[in-house]
Amino acid sequence: MISNELIKDMGNSSWIRRMFEEGVKLKQQFGAENVYDFSLGNPELPPPTSVTDSLKRIVNSEDVDVHRYMNNAGFTDVRKKVADSINKTTEVPLSTEHIIMTCGAAGGLNVCMKTLLNPGEEIIIFAPFFAEYRFYISNFGGKAVIIPTNKETFQPDLKELEKNITSKTKAIIINSPNNPTGVVYSECILRKMADLIETKEKEFNTSIFVLSDEPYAKITYDNVAPPNMLNIFKNSIIVNSFSKSLGIPGERIGYIAVNSKIENLDLLINGLVFCNRTLGYVNAPALFQKIIANSLEDCIDMTAYTKRRDLFYTSLTNMGFSCVKPEGAFYLFPKSLIEDDVEFVLKAKDYNLLLVPGSGFGWKGNFRVSYCVSMETIENSLPAFEKLAAYYKK
Amino acid sequence: MISNELIKDMGNSSWIRRMFEEGVKLKQQFGAENVYDFSLGNPELPPPTSVTDSLKRIVNSEDVDVHRYMNNAGFTDVRKKVADSINKTTEVPLSTEHIIMTCGAAGGLNVCMKTLLNPGEEIIIFAPFFAEYRFYISNFGGKAVIIPTNKETFQPDLKELEKNITSKTKAIIINSPNNPTGVVYSECILRKMADLIETKEKEFNTSIFVLSDEPYAKITYDNVAPPNMLNIFKNSIIVNSFSKSLGIPGERIGYIAVNSKIENLDLLINGLVFCNRTLGYVNAPALFQKIIANSLEDCIDMTAYTKRRDLFYTSLTNMGFSCVKPEGAFYLFPKSLIEDDVEFVLKAKDYNLLLVPGSGFGWKGNFRVSYCVSMETIENSLPAFEKLAAYYKK
Repeated sequence: MISNELIKDMGNSSWIRRMFEEGVKLKQQFGAENVYDFSLGNPELPPPTSVTDSLKRIVNSEDVDVHRYMNNAGFTDVRKKVADSINKTTEVPLSTEHIIMTCGAAGGLNVCMKTLLNPGEEIIIFAPFFAEYRFYISNFGGKAVIIPTNKETFQPDLKELEKNITSKTKAIIINSPNNPTGVVYSECILRKMADLIETKEKEFNTSIFVLSDEPYAKITYDNVAPPNMLNIFKNSIIVNSFSKSLGIPGERIGYIAVNSKIENLDLLINGLVFCNRTLGYVNAPALFQKIIANSLEDCIDMTAYTKRRDLFYTSLTNMGFSCVKPEGAFYLFPKSLIEDDVEFVLKAKDYNLLLVPGSGFGWKGNFRVSYCVSMETIENSLPAFEKLAAYYKK
Repeated sequence: MISNELIKDMGNSSWIRRMFEEGVKLKQQFGAENVYDFSLGNPELPPPTSVTDSLKRIVNSEDVDVHRYMNNAGFTDVRKKVADSINKTTEVPLSTEHIIMTCGAAGGLNVCMKTLLNPGEEIIIFAPFFAEYRFYISNFGGKAVIIPTNKETFQPDLKELEKNITSKTKAIIINSPNNPTGVVYSECILRKMADLIETKEKEFNTSIFVLSDEPYAKITYDNVAPPNMLNIFKNSIIVNSFSKSLGIPGERIGYIAVNSKIENLDLLINGLVFCNRTLGYVNAPALFQKIIANSLEDCIDMTAYTKRRDLFYTSLTNMGFSCVKPEGAFYLFPKSLIEDDVEFVLKAKDYNLLLVPGSGFGWKGNFRVSYCVSMETIENSLPAFEKLAAYYKK
C-alpha cells in the first residue's frame, strides 16, 4: 500500500524521536518534573530580544506584503544581508546570488542532495553523525559511505577518508561543531582534508563537494571559533540554520551559501533554486526570513549554555563517566558504562533518565545527553545518574 | 557536476515562473504601472483581520514556546481544530491523528508522493494541470499519466480515465476548483469516478488513492460548494493550503487530512509523518500553525475577487475571447486567438501583457490569466487586450 523502501526505512527510524516519545509516556506516568529528558535538541532558552523585537515591529506594522510569494531563493534584501554577514569572516566574497534561503538546514541538505546526486553516487559522512543524514541521502538515490572518526578525539580520520573516496564520491558532509559529540574539527585536519580532496579530484577528474552543515557554528565555548569552510574548501557549500543559534527550531529557517569560486556556478545555483521550488518548499517561510535578517550577528545566551555544560561535564566525569569536553553544540557524548549502549540507555530509563544510544548516531558504546534544558533539570537528574553509575559498579 | 536528470527537468521548467521573470524585466524597462502582469497566483488581497489579529496577539504575548519543535505532525491543538473544522462538512469523522500539518500543499503533495510511490508506479493527472505535479511525481520515481479533460467543459473524461487505470496506478490527483481553468468538478462525475475506481481496485486487487489538492476550496463564486472528496472517495487524502484562502502564500502552511476509512491507516499515517520529517520539512512552520488554527472558517474578501472575475470575464468574452466562466480559483483560461498558444503569449508581451501559455499546463491552444491583481491593473490592461485581439483580427 505504501512504499516498500519506506517501510524498511521506518524500521530503522530515529532513536532521538523514539526516546522523545518514550519520554512523553514516562512523563504521563511519573509527572514531568520527575523525568529527566535529555533526548532532544529543542532549545529551552528564549530567542535573543532582537528576534522578539523584530517580530513585534513587523507584525504590528501590518505590512502584509511580507507574507506573499517572493523569488524561490528568498527575499533579495535578506539574501544580501546574509551574504554581507558571511563576508565578515571569510576571504571568499559572496553576494546575494550565492545565498538561497531554505526551510532550515534539513530542508537545505535535502535540496543539496536532490541537486547533486545521480543514482548510486556516494556521500561520505563521519561517524558519529546526525542520524537523519542517511535518509536525506537515500531520498534521492545516493549511497551513504560511513567513515569512523578517531576513537579518542572524534576528529576525522584522513587515512580512512583516503581509502573511501572513489570516482563515485559526490560530496562529503562535515558537521562541526558536531552533533552528537560537541567536537569542533581542527583547522589543521581540515586543511589536510582539502589537500586530499584536491588530489582525489584530479585523480578521478571529478568535483567533490564539501557540504558543511553548521547549525551549531555560533554555539561554541571557551572562545573557540570553528574553522571557516569557505576559506578551506573550494567546492564548499554551507548549509546553516537559525534553529539553534536563535532558538526558533519550529520556524524552519536557514540558508544555503555556495562558494563563489566553484566552477559552473550558475548551473549549481539554478539547480538548487529549482529543487527548493520543486521539492515543495517553494520558498523559506517568509516572515522568518525577515526576522533572521535582523539578528544575523545574534545568538541565544551562551553564558547559560556554558554553565550547563560545565556542571554536567564535571558531574558526570566525577562519577566516572569518560567524556570528551564539548567545544560546541549542546551535547555530551560519554562512553556507556557497558559495551552495549542500547542496553545501557534502556536501563537508564529505570531511573527516569532519557538518553539516546550512540548506535542512533552510527557509533556503539557511547550515549548522547542533550543539555539544552534548564539547570534545574540537570541538577535534579544528578542523583539518578549516580544511581545508574552505582548499578554498574556493583 | 549536478544531477543529469535535474538538468533535463530544468529545461522543461515552469512557464509561470518564466513569465513572472520576464515581467520583472519588462517592468524595469517600461515601469511597473505600464506592465500588466497576470502570470502568478500571488494573492494581492490582504489576509483576513483574524490572521493579522492573532499574529499580533501571539507575538505581543511573548510566548516563545510557540517557536520550538513539536511533534513532526504538528501541534496537537492545531490538528484537533483542523479535524473539527473538516468534520463540519463531511460524513467521515476525522480526529487529531488524521491531520498532518505541512509546508503548504506543495510540501504535502511531495510527502504523499514519497510515502506512496514505489519506482515506476503511476500517478494519474487530468490536463490541464498545475505544472509542478510532474516534478512532485518524478522526484520519487513515479510516472505521471496525463489524461485530457472534456474540451468544452474541462470536466474529467471517465472513458479516458478507465482506459488508463492499470495495476500500477497508485493515485489520481484531483484539483478542483482547478488551476488553470477555474472549473469545479461536478459531484455527479466524481461519484461515477469513485465507482470506476472501486471496480478497478477489485480488478487489480490494489488500493488507488485520490489525492485531492484543494488550495482553492474556499475560493468559489455564485454559492458553488465544491463536492466533498472524503464523502465520495474511500481512499482519499486531502492536501490543503492556506496560501490562497488566507492570502499568506509565502508562509508555507497547509495540511494533509487522511480519510479515516482507509485500511491499514496507521501505516499510512506513520509513513506520512516520517516523510514530513525526513524530507527535511521536519514540521510545518510553528507560528503559522497557531495562526491558521484561529482562522479556519475565514477567507480573503471574495466580493473583491468576484468583481475582478466578472469584469475580466465579461470584457474578454465581449472582445471575442472564448472562455469557460470560472466557478472557483482566480484564473481565466481562454482560447488563444491562434492555435499556437506559446506564439500568442509571446505576441501579448509586445502589448506588455504577461500571460501563461496553456502548454505550461499540458494543454495547447489556451492561455491563463491570473486575476488575483488589483481592479486597476485589470481595467488598465483592457485596451492592451483590445489591441492584441485587433492584431489577430486583421
